[in-house]
Parts: sequence; C-alpha cells; structure tokens
Amino acid sequence: MRPVRQRSRIAARCSSGSCVQPCLACSRSALDGRQAPAPGNLSIDRQVVNGPFSPYRAVWPRLSGVVKPVAFYRSMDRWTVDTQGSSKVTLGRPRANPLIGTGANPRREILDAAGRLFTSVGFSAASTRSIAEAVGLRQASLFHHFPSKEDILAALLDETVEPSLKFAAELAATDAPADVAIYLLIVNDLANYCSGPGNLGSLQVQPEARRQRFKNFWDKRDQLKAHYRELIVRGKSEGMFKLTDSDLATNIIFALVEGTATWYEQDGGWSPTTTFDTIAEFALRIVMGNAEAASRARTAALQFIRHGTREPVP
Amino acid sequence: MRPVRQRSRIAARCSSGSCVQPCLACSRSALDGRQAPAPGNLSIDRQVVNGPFSPYRAVWPRLSGVVKPVAFYRSMDRWTVDTQGSSKVTLGRPRANPLIGTGANPRREILDAAGRLFTSVGFSAASTRSIAEAVGLRQASLFHHFPSKEDILAALLDETVEPSLKFAAELAATDAPADVAIYLLIVNDLANYCSGPGNLGSLQVQPEARRQRFKNFWDKRDQLKAHYRELIVRGKSEGMFKLTDSDLATNIIFALVEGTATWYEQDGGWSPTTTFDTIAEFALRIVMGNAEAASRARTAALQFIRHGTREPVP
Repeated sequence: MRPVRQRSRIAARCSSGSCVQPCLACSRSALDGRQAPAPGNLSIDRQVVNGPFSPYRAVWPRLSGVVKPVAFYRSMDRWTVDTQGSSKVTLGRPRANPLIGTGANPRREILDAAGRLFTSVGFSAASTRSIAEAVGLRQASLFHHFPSKEDILAALLDETVEPSLKFAAELAATDAPADVAIYLLIVNDLANYCSGPGNLGSLQVQPEARRQRFKNFWDKRDQLKAHYRELIVRGKSEGMFKLTDSDLATNIIFALVEGTATWYEQDGGWSPTTTFDTIAEFALRIVMGNAEAASRARTAALQFIRHGTREPVP
Repeated sequence: MRPVRQRSRIAARCSSGSCVQPCLACSRSALDGRQAPAPGNLSIDRQVVNGPFSPYRAVWPRLSGVVKPVAFYRSMDRWTVDTQGSSKVTLGRPRANPLIGTGANPRREILDAAGRLFTSVGFSAASTRSIAEAVGLRQASLFHHFPSKEDILAALLDETVEPSLKFAAELAATDAPADVAIYLLIVNDLANYCSGPGNLGSLQVQPEARRQRFKNFWDKRDQLKAHYRELIVRGKSEGMFKLTDSDLATNIIFALVEGTATWYEQDGGWSPTTTFDTIAEFALRIVMGNAEAASRARTAALQFIRHGTREPVP
C-alpha cells in the first residue's frame, strides 16, 4: 500500500485570465476572465508563437521545492509575464542588429531562434552564424552564452524533458491512483513536449541528437520513461490496467506521446487542450481497455487538479 | 452498403519455412518448418540486418495486379530469395572496391547504404561520396543510378509508404469490416514502415524531407492517411467505433503507427510479430473503447488473413 501523501502538493490551474483557450483545469478562458496575471504568482517561459496553436508553457512558481504542473493555453500574441525580474535583465553584450529581438534575455532568444532553425533546416544545416543573425547578436556574443552549437541543442533537448521529469517526480509523491496519474503525466508531458518554436519534441529524432554529447538528455528521457513504466506496472499489478507486457506497453504509450511531434504543429486545427486531453484519454483506453473507465479516470484527474490545489479554487 | 468483393484477393501468410519468429498468419516458425523457400513463390527485398529484430519484407508475388500483404519475420542472417532473377543481374558499372557488396543489385545496395547513413548521421551530413564508398562504387556510377542525393532520399521515402498504400487500396476493395481492416492495415503498414536498414520510417522526420522535392512522398503519405481516415469514419458511422472526432483520432492513430520509428530498433527485445500485433490491438482498443471487442476483431483479422488466401491453407 502506497503511503497517502497530501494532495496539496499538486496544483495546476490557470489564474492568469489571459487564456484564450479554456484551461483544462479551471475551464475559464481569457474571454471570461478579466483580471491581469498577478505578478510574482505566475512565471511564463517566453516563447515565440509561430503557429496558431503553439502553447505557452506556464510554470507555477516553485515554492518549498514543489514544482507545479504545467497549465497550458495559447495566447493571441507574444506575451511575457515577468515575475522574478529576470526577463528585464539585459546582458551587456554588443548586438550586431539592435532592432532584432527585444534584448530582454539573449540566452532565451538564442534558444528560440536555434529551435526554429534546427527544426526547419536541421541541426547540421543551421550555422551558429545564422542563429546569431536571427537574434541580432555577433557570433562572439552567441559563443559567450553557448560555447558551441551542440550546447544549444543540449539546452533545447533538456527543455523537452526536464519540466516533465520534475512533474513526474512530484506526481509520484502524491496519492494519485495509477489511472489519474498517467492521465496527468501525459497531459503535462505533451504540453511541455509540444511547446516551443517549431515543436522542439521533434529535435530528438534528428540523427545528431544521438551523439554521446547528448547522453545527459537521453538519461533524463529514460528517467521520464521509467515514470511512465512505474505507473503502468502499478496499474497492472492493482488489476486496473489490462496489459500483457508492461514494458512493451510503456514503449507504445511513450511513443504515442512523442509521436505527436510529427503532426501537431503541421496539422493545427485542434486546441492544445483538446489534443492533449484526447491523447491522454486514448492512452487510458489502451491501458484500461474500457472507454467508460477511461472517461471516469479523466474526470477524476480533472477533479484531482482542481481540488488538489493549495490555494482555494474560486 | 459496400459491395461484397471476393475475399480471395487478400492473402498473407508465411510459406517459406525460414521464419524464426512465428508468422502472424501461419503461426509457424523456422524451427517447425524444414522446407526451403519455393523459388518463384516468394520474393524478398534484400536488406541488411543491422539489429536482432530488423524485419525482412517479404512481398508476395504480384499476380493479376494483386499486391499481397506483407508477411513479416526476422531472419538469423542476411538472406535472399531470388524469384524473378533480378537480384542476379549485375549491372556493368565499374566498382571502386569489388570486395564490398555483392554486386547483385547496385541500386538496392545504394539505397541500403544511404538508408543506414541518412538515419545514422543525417541526410545533410551523409555525402554521396560516403554512400558510394559504402557500396564500393565510384561516385560516377552512383550518379548513374541516382542523379542526386535527393533522388536517393526520394526513393527511400517512397519505400516507406508505397507498399502500405497499395495494400490499403487492395484492402478497401474487400468486404473486411472496419475493425478487421484497420488491424490489417496497421500491421502491414508497421511491417513496411519499420523495415529497412536503420528504420527508414524515421527519415520523414528529418527536416530535409520537408523540401518541395519530396512533395510526391507527402502526397502518397496523405493518401495512406486518408485510407486510415476512411476506415475510422466508416467504423464510427456504423457505430462500431466510439470516437468524437474522426480527424483527430486519425492523426493520433497514424502517429501511434509512425511513432514506432522512434523506439523500435533501439529498444529491440520484441519480435516484429508481437510488436506490430500489440500496436494494432491497442489501436483497436482506442477506436472501439473495449479490450474484449478489440481482441475479437484481432482474431477475426487473423481468420480473414488465413482463409482469405487464394491458396489452400495447410
């Protein structure tokens, strides 16, 4: 029997009022909410919207070492909320073209520009010169932030897995049942995985990503996959999941999530909320072998998010 | 009401006796069978086994314009069956290194070597010189077969979709119910998609594959996806499939199949039979929302293969 942990450690809801898509957790949209994002309450990775459905990543502030789950939504426009003041820090590096970029966070801008180039022309074909030009930096300034092009790819790869890995670890410390937990894990993993310019999830499929330099990323991805496996094994041992081979099922469920990178941005037309929710419920159909049970688990997961928050839900 | 076509147009079973994995259709393995492959009865694309579970593609001979489904299995070793004599044709091009390759089919060897290089170092990083060297051909000879590196990639991309597309068209002309048909389509698509050196399915994710030059491939892939969609829409309209959005479900099911390219060869440990069968049954669980119904559909699909053959089943 797993120990019962306090549910208050998991919280994911949108309180920004800037959502244009209804938030999965709070079901509110920007059209309903009017209040501005509370500074210091919500930090948002600034990312460039390069398609109508690129989700922003909204990461709740880390309090007491607790990483809050990802609340995802799309924004109508480029939008930044500065909570720690970090995005207002302009590093004093010379800019080749001061009109390009905001200068708010050169490191972030380099990552965004590189992400777009790596996913559009490929890692090998994208030169550090072209990345620097896209940001309006001199190459020397780029190398100040990232000693090599491989360092940029390493940072981008890490972003596709680290938030999900932290969320999975927090999730494992709750009393969420296996079906609820796997739903939450998949939705949050997809929100992170499909974020970023050019769908960074597809970066790992580029042959260059298999180099020894990126072993750290693959190790983290293995750890994330192990979280999926642990939930699948637990659900099976409790008789909740109807599976023959947990390891094979883990591979297939994990690929179901990662396979989203091949079509999500290209075939836009569904909101992140609808897409990630549908994929997670389909995964529940697979492991539970029952659409009604999957639907009930999904409802329980949304309840778990709504009422597992440490702040009172309005 | 769809017209009832003769079932004899679909046949897929392994009669080679050289399977080491039980064939999905005939459930026999090489350890059971002793007879040699009957020449003229089975043609096998010669491919290099670069992992313990790389499937060979065994394509039944095309009789009366009928493309038979793929029967897949692995072989203990490199293995070629020559049925039409084509693989014995040695074209009269000079070889830089006559010791490399068999010289049986330079075009095939170029494709195999390029497939390995494209999937290991990437399209941009793989030079035509390195491809020619891997085959033991002079670059001029390589250009005789393929005017450019892009032509090689185009041919490889086509191989990941064309057999599945032809099979899907044949399948559409049968009276297979939607659940049986989607099982067969997925198993055959996976067998083709995951075949080849280096898992050619992953080629389409390389950024270079999005170039206009490869529009022909993407058009064919769209046609294949349309076959998936047609089955999903039919199954839903007949009340057999429990789905809200057929288009979104098509994207997810299609990505479930294509996502296999990201893990299949790396995480070897399952036979192609087990892997493809499990994925297809999971897809049935998704669309039918019921594990028992999915299992029954799978059994029906295997019956459809076994008894839909034009040759008597032993």
